[in-house]
Amino acid sequence: MSITLQQLADKINAQLRGDGSVIITGCATLSEACPGEVTFLANAKYADQLETSRAAAVILCPDDAAKAPDRTVLISDDPYFAFRQAMVHLVGFRAQPDFGLDDKAVIADSVTLGKDCRVGPYAVIDQRAKIGDRCVIYPHVYIGADAVIGEDCILYPQVTVYDRCVLGNRVTLHAGCSIGQDGFGYATHDGAHHKIPLAGNAVIEDDVEMGAHCSVDRATLGSTTIGAGTKFSNGVTIGHGCHVGEHNLYVAQVGLAGSVTTGQYVAMGGKAGIAGHLKIGKLAQIAAFSAVFRDVPDGARVGGVPAQDLSEMWRILSHLQHLPELSKKVRALERKLKSDQ
Amino acid sequence: MSITLQQLADKINAQLRGDGSVIITGCATLSEACPGEVTFLANAKYADQLETSRAAAVILCPDDAAKAPDRTVLISDDPYFAFRQAMVHLVGFRAQPDFGLDDKAVIADSVTLGKDCRVGPYAVIDQRAKIGDRCVIYPHVYIGADAVIGEDCILYPQVTVYDRCVLGNRVTLHAGCSIGQDGFGYATHDGAHHKIPLAGNAVIEDDVEMGAHCSVDRATLGSTTIGAGTKFSNGVTIGHGCHVGEHNLYVAQVGLAGSVTTGQYVAMGGKAGIAGHLKIGKLAQIAAFSAVFRDVPDGARVGGVPAQDLSEMWRILSHLQHLPELSKKVRALERKLKSDQ
Amino acid sequence: MSITLQQLADKINAQLRGDGSVIITGCATLSEACPGEVTFLANAKYADQLETSRAAAVILCPDDAAKAPDRTVLISDDPYFAFRQAMVHLVGFRAQPDFGLDDKAVIADSVTLGKDCRVGPYAVIDQRAKIGDRCVIYPHVYIGADAVIGEDCILYPQVTVYDRCVLGNRVTLHAGCSIGQDGFGYATHDGAHHKIPLAGNAVIEDDVEMGAHCSVDRATLGSTTIGAGTKFSNGVTIGHGCHVGEHNLYVAQVGLAGSVTTGQYVAMGGKAGIAGHLKIGKLAQIAAFSAVFRDVPDGARVGGVPAQDLSEMWRILSHLQHLPELSKKVRALERKLKSDQ
Repeated sequence: MSITLQQLADKINAQLRGDGSVIITGCATLSEACPGEVTFLANAKYADQLETSRAAAVILCPDDAAKAPDRTVLISDDPYFAFRQAMVHLVGFRAQPDFGLDDKAVIADSVTLGKDCRVGPYAVIDQRAKIGDRCVIYPHVYIGADAVIGEDCILYPQVTVYDRCVLGNRVTLHAGCSIGQDGFGYATHDGAHHKIPLAGNAVIEDDVEMGAHCSVDRATLGSTTIGAGTKFSNGVTIGHGCHVGEHNLYVAQVGLAGSVTTGQYVAMGGKAGIAGHLKIGKLAQIAAFSAVFRDVPDGARVGGVPAQDLSEMWRILSHLQHLPELSKKVRALERKLKSDQ
Repeated sequence: MSITLQQLADKINAQLRGDGSVIITGCATLSEACPGEVTFLANAKYADQLETSRAAAVILCPDDAAKAPDRTVLISDDPYFAFRQAMVHLVGFRAQPDFGLDDKAVIADSVTLGKDCRVGPYAVIDQRAKIGDRCVIYPHVYIGADAVIGEDCILYPQVTVYDRCVLGNRVTLHAGCSIGQDGFGYATHDGAHHKIPLAGNAVIEDDVEMGAHCSVDRATLGSTTIGAGTKFSNGVTIGHGCHVGEHNLYVAQVGLAGSVTTGQYVAMGGKAGIAGHLKIGKLAQIAAFSAVFRDVPDGARVGGVPAQDLSEMWRILSHLQHLPELSKKVRALERKLKSDQ
Repeated sequence: MSITLQQLADKINAQLRGDGSVIITGCATLSEACPGEVTFLANAKYADQLETSRAAAVILCPDDAAKAPDRTVLISDDPYFAFRQAMVHLVGFRAQPDFGLDDKAVIADSVTLGKDCRVGPYAVIDQRAKIGDRCVIYPHVYIGADAVIGEDCILYPQVTVYDRCVLGNRVTLHAGCSIGQDGFGYATHDGAHHKIPLAGNAVIEDDVEMGAHCSVDRATLGSTTIGAGTKFSNGVTIGHGCHVGEHNLYVAQVGLAGSVTTGQYVAMGGKAGIAGHLKIGKLAQIAAFSAVFRDVPDGARVGGVPAQDLSEMWRILSHLQHLPELSKKVRALERKLKSDQ
């Protein structure tokens, strides 16, 4: 696709400074952009590339624009979102393959299949499952009996949706995700771990996307739920009975033990872990590599092992760096007091 | 299923206090139970729901029963196990789909298949594998050549059992587990990492259950072994040459490096990691998020990064919280001593 | 296979001390070796087994050989590599199954397939993908449209290679790996997380091997790259836009956030995590369980949460162990100063 810079500015709601007649054909990073491509600056780390970039125009915030008076720029209060919009217009989302309804897919007679679904070879959809319109189901996906999949879902290869689990609309599950396996529930008695029946299911609400190898346990009773608009990176695992709120963002390898509840807009950095039965308040931010053993209030920022208030954590860590000197000072004081006597 | 409360009490070996003629039709959590359902109290966190729960009866321990004299209760010394028994009687385990021997499964001629196995479409069982009676093998499972699977195993979709690996009886592997991939063994020489042949295999003993995406490396020589009755949650990975003991319990995302040995009844919290070649004694408890770099004696409780005695860890962490004050005190002492002179 | 010890010594470039006419039939660990087998000593932890081992000969370094003057030994400056060579000669690598081109594999007409490839039943290779000579593609592998796979690759079951991704020669991906899923890129705007198109791909260079369940995100723009000769254990995840250097070694459950760059020969212990946009210098060593939040210089050894110079970390941790005593000393000093006045 190619449009003028002025057209692009209009489309992404940015303010043009410079020649609007330049033809834009694509997007690229600051360091790799060619003339004819648009790029963006949203991370201060890359600011020094502003001068050397060969891009036709840079999407940036008003402050950064002021620092580069000679460049052709598209000014936006939210340059990352504006660049996203440019990507959507100029590049678009990856096309999904047109499997049609491959005759090598196994779709049980009792399945209800919506309009215009694409089901790849060797996908298996079991008894009485319901699939909404326009879903894309890749090869080697397994959808269990009585599962319900909404409209416009994309299930990449090797995804498993266990029986009776529910996906909303526009849910995307990347390769190898597993929804609804039995939760980790055993009653230990007389030296053996006795499996507890997992009578519940897992429910993934609208507009959720999960990276590769995410897993959501089914509940013992009721449902494990993942709120609308929530996004997981790779390898995130959610224990049974959790209720993840809406619009949460979890970076890779996050793990929630059983029965955790999170509010809206919770963000977790990579490898963060939450112990069982905790409540994480809305808008809370959990730093990467945090081990959370207590409830987290709304809007709190926590980090560390175990997790505590993030600024307090950094304050203590900075003191910790000087602990060897502190020990030395105490020894000096002890000697001094001894010699004084 | 529906039975009287008295019948249920008898079945689960609990002592009834209240009207035994009530009809019980199901199980639920304290907060969600309806009249006609039985619930349980095993975690003090939920004790305040005892009064408000609409459940017909609550399974609880004698102490908790004494605190709620007006409620109909089922008293048990092990209320969690008693509830598990109630779940098994009233709800039962999820039924497995009746694939029969689907003609779209590929079962090599040289495979030995037990009686009453169910093998789903697109499962592949390679040369000379042996499958015991009554196994359930879901679609997209791959069982390699010369693998041996015991009786009553359940292999969920996308499970891979590599060649020559062995599963005992009643082993359950959830979606995407991989048993017997090559261990991480390279000899670095002249600037390249040279792969070491993995001539061994992996052996999973009776009654093991693993959550989604668990992986067990095959051994270089001999076998990596997972002891009978051991249970893993999701994403647990076991390095080559490990010997995991019997009845271990590992929460999600635990990782054991190569050649680790654990005794019986070891428990590990989520995300715990064990460095290579260590010995973890029987009944040891490894807290969530622990990084274990040393052997752990029988019965020890350890935690932290690096892991140490758990109560010692908490003691040091509590001192750490006061480190900024301690620094201040030392500075005050220094000033004082200076001014005294 | 069976050869004399002298022949083996010649083959693995080791110096024989003892009777070279003994017939060697296999390899084993020190504790499990039988007469007729060769073993090795590379980890001091197992040195005490040197005397009791029943092995015909032990591969070890000159120093260890000097300590066991009565044993038949094969002396090598790099005993681990020498043992690896012995394993290759005596045991060899696991044979791959001979699927041929199974007629139950779906290979699109537009696919270019090299010579002597083996493609198992139910593998799916999509439009215009190119597969080099002698690849082994197991059942349930999915290779997306326009993907390019080099020569002599092995793709184990349940591997997904997304569209347009590229694998070099001799790449081995164990069960369940996913290459090229969409990276974790969202622009949050007006309360929703808007997906950014992932227009790039993922490129895996020659001689890379990955354990089970590894995942490499495709880039927003350009390529996520994994350098030649790099090896991952299980469950390693690489964010979008990363450039992993050549000959890196990552133990299980390592995670790199987006846009991380690593030099050659970087090693990471299990569960290490690297925050986004960082640069890890060549030959750097990242200890297990490290959380890296800053660039790491060439050759540095770092560890801890957050990661710092490794020896400094241990120094601080050793002081931390004595923090409770230090507090006590400070209280004693305070009392003393008070009573002195």
